Amino acid sequence: MPDGLGAPLNEPLFQRLALIGMGLIGSSLARVCRRKGLAREIIATDSSSAVRARVTELALADHIVAAAAAAVEAADLVILCAPVGVMGAIAREIGPHLLPGAIVSDVGSVKASIIKAVAPHLPAMVHFVPSHPVAGTEQSGPEAGFPTLFFNRWSILTPPEGTNPKAVAKLASFWTGAGAYVEIMQPAHHDLVLAITSHVPHLIAYNIVGTAADLEEVTRSEVIKFSAGGFRDFTRIAASDPTMWRDIFLNNKEAVLEMLGRFNEDLSALQRMIRNGDAEGLFDLFTRTRAIRRGIIEQGQETAAPDFGRRAGET
Amino acid sequence: MPDGLGAPLNEPLFQRLALIGMGLIGSSLARVCRRKGLAREIIATDSSSAVRARVTELALADHIVAAAAAAVEAADLVILCAPVGVMGAIAREIGPHLLPGAIVSDVGSVKASIIKAVAPHLPAMVHFVPSHPVAGTEQSGPEAGFPTLFFNRWSILTPPEGTNPKAVAKLASFWTGAGAYVEIMQPAHHDLVLAITSHVPHLIAYNIVGTAADLEEVTRSEVIKFSAGGFRDFTRIAASDPTMWRDIFLNNKEAVLEMLGRFNEDLSALQRMIRNGDAEGLFDLFTRTRAIRRGIIEQGQETAAPDFGRRAGET
Repeated sequence: MPDGLGAPLNEPLFQRLALIGMGLIGSSLARVCRRKGLAREIIATDSSSAVRARVTELALADHIVAAAAAAVEAADLVILCAPVGVMGAIAREIGPHLLPGAIVSDVGSVKASIIKAVAPHLPAMVHFVPSHPVAGTEQSGPEAGFPTLFFNRWSILTPPEGTNPKAVAKLASFWTGAGAYVEIMQPAHHDLVLAITSHVPHLIAYNIVGTAADLEEVTRSEVIKFSAGGFRDFTRIAASDPTMWRDIFLNNKEAVLEMLGRFNEDLSALQRMIRNGDAEGLFDLFTRTRAIRRGIIEQGQETAAPDFGRRAGET
Repeated sequence: MPDGLGAPLNEPLFQRLALIGMGLIGSSLARVCRRKGLAREIIATDSSSAVRARVTELALADHIVAAAAAAVEAADLVILCAPVGVMGAIAREIGPHLLPGAIVSDVGSVKASIIKAVAPHLPAMVHFVPSHPVAGTEQSGPEAGFPTLFFNRWSILTPPEGTNPKAVAKLASFWTGAGAYVEIMQPAHHDLVLAITSHVPHLIAYNIVGTAADLEEVTRSEVIKFSAGGFRDFTRIAASDPTMWRDIFLNNKEAVLEMLGRFNEDLSALQRMIRNGDAEGLFDLFTRTRAIRRGIIEQGQETAAPDFGRRAGET
């Protein structure tokens, strides 16, 4: 079936890829690397023995090992696909075992704090090129991955100053090979952009689902029954992995609080419009917000199907 | 193609259905009434001549007339499918022309204020049974409708005290015939339930899309490119019809402000958790919110497909 990913490369970009962490992102990387021939050999590891067992059953890698230190031996590309909060510990563990000249990357949703946690543990002769593929679903684990997860999505690289440009270009080719577009950004700017496009949206989704769950006047059964009025869209996001998201908020505190401050200011203004019955102000805002969605659909970052195509095929 | 709606009725429930307003909801009602034979004849009207022309082209009704007063003549079921803010004016216009014994209903997303606006204009010998089908998409207009819009969704009836129980039962059969489940509720309770399951979710979606659009540090192009991180789900809701939503907020002010107050309290607590680095508190909330989504999926109000099935078919 044509999946849009194109033909495999004639020659792999890397000899040996080590994936540290085999959840949604790690297992999707394994799949697309196989599909596109991006690496000659894939070594996978995960701190959970249950996950390692599933990865073995699913045959997602050439070798599955228990220790991260063992996984990175002889790897010319190492990608950390673990929650943000454990990146530093992994770096400390693998640092002494890295191949000189290897590229080390990660897929974390925050960048400045990962660089701070990881960089000190890496030997001088490896190239650290942090990355963040802006792609995912609310599902977790090695079963949840699929090879087209990154297709038509953006992967943001945030190389610290002084990073070898060849290493950056090679990692960019890797992401392009996986079907993604690549953008280079300063780590701090990345963290601000993602705060508004990802972190605060998750935060307010978690929050409203929590609010609804705690109400006394409205039962949980009523919330569930009548969720088609809009609420259920928020529950998808609020079903995302709790460990991953806890770590994101703890590690992008400043940018999240900054963007949340803007959100709160705007919400106060909107609240006032409702209280004062400002029909024109409400109408203006509700009209203006449509333009952003049009842009997202036009640029292929979203389907135009109504209701997310939930009723696709029904006419 | 089997659409789940089942066979048409042997005998229509109503002789003549008048639909006042032919947007997403009105045109979906016309389609399912045809499909299921719920009414022998359908008369449609809309205040917009462009909409009436589209309804004629699409042949969605047996007769299309320009005046609401003309549409309701001889109709034994009249359903107002217009924005909340114009329901009172329509009632005033059609009141003197209603058939004795007719059932008058509506599909508005708020109930107490509609009852207040509509009831005084209706003659004593008609039965007013307000309803609210909790179903919809972000699309508007007669082209956007489809016959299965109400299938497996809930329609809430909020008959004022003293309403003829037979009229309530008959309207319930109508919604059941359209594929919906029916629930009877007090108007004020309805408005509270919908404030949390629909109105406040729309409000915060409109709000965050507005916040993102106004940022100076993050460009609109960045917001669009990296929207797959969560933001794009909010833009679907924030693309809903501005007139409809302006009217909802103006007419469910108290319940919306009440629920928004709860949301804000919870958000302040969450903000404090982030500021204080309360890992455990964050993890607990993010775990708790998953249960609500499970309930929604189990009760068939949502698809379990990851990412709303945006990549359905890809493996």
